[in-house]
Amino acid sequence: MYVPGFGEASPEAKAAKNLHNLFTYVAVRVVNAQLESYNTEAHKELTEFMEKHSLNDGDKFCAALMRESSRHKTLAMRILEVRSAYCKKDFEWDNLERLAKKMADESNTRLMRDYVLETSHVETEKMKSPNFMDNIVLHMIMFIYIYISCNANHFTPY
Amino acid sequence: MYVPGFGEASPEAKAAKNLHNLFTYVAVRVVNAQLESYNTEAHKELTEFMEKHSLNDGDKFCAALMRESSRHKTLAMRILEVRSAYCKKDFEWDNLERLAKKMADESNTRLMRDYVLETSHVETEKMKSPNFMDNIVLHMIMFIYIYISCNANHFTPY
Repeated sequence: MYVPGFGEASPEAKAAKNLHNLFTYVAVRVVNAQLESYNTEAHKELTEFMEKHSLNDGDKFCAALMRESSRHKTLAMRILEVRSAYCKKDFEWDNLERLAKKMADESNTRLMRDYVLETSHVETEKMKSPNFMDNIVLHMIMFIYIYISCNANHFTPY
Repeated sequence: MYVPGFGEASPEAKAAKNLHNLFTYVAVRVVNAQLESYNTEAHKELTEFMEKHSLNDGDKFCAALMRESSRHKTLAMRILEVRSAYCKKDFEWDNLERLAKKMADESNTRLMRDYVLETSHVETEKMKSPNFMDNIVLHMIMFIYIYISCNANHFTPY
């Protein structure tokens, strides 16, 4: 589906790039945790390198690590292997989809509930205002919307 | 799979949160593009709001939009609907997985190829160094690794 604001890329490509950086972060953490138990010197070197270099851009981090020293290069090769294997074997893709869909429902419900509760408190002070009935109708519509959101996943708003 | 560095959360939960913010960004873009053709006033209001409020945290953006004015609240409700429908119906989950796996392979290959090309140039100047044969062996190993990475997806490095 075409989405404005992504240039020639797509939301899927943007999301894949974010995941790629996350997988590098995971691989660095996994390798460093493994080193902690059997190679404390390498563990110390990698920890020091992480303190000086951002992991926001995974590829940039790995490229810098490869060029630091021959020992760092070995670590970088290991990180490249682990991030590829993690992406292909261990990352739970179905779980990601389930969690994101659950988050969409829960966040929408929470945002509307918080708004209704917040404004209900304010409205109590304004019960004599001429717009009181309008507000009651609005809140009823929002409650119905929350109810439908919680109970039905089959709607096509656009 | 347990991964250190994520506290009580998981990489999947972290990735779902990032996707949730991306879906809000997509929904805002979709709604604003729709408004452009049939409600220029609302389009202008939403554009102005976007200039003043960051979309990095999607829920925070929507919460602020709901509280701006009653007209903004209607826009916020529409955005909540669209992001939920986009997540459930239009986002291409299979495509995301395919792109991320492809990116893992391509990035690893590119990083190693760039390193080999860069150091090969330097090594040419050092051909008479006593470590020359060591470097040749290292480069051969890296070339073999690149070849295997491009041709085989079935390896379990950890």
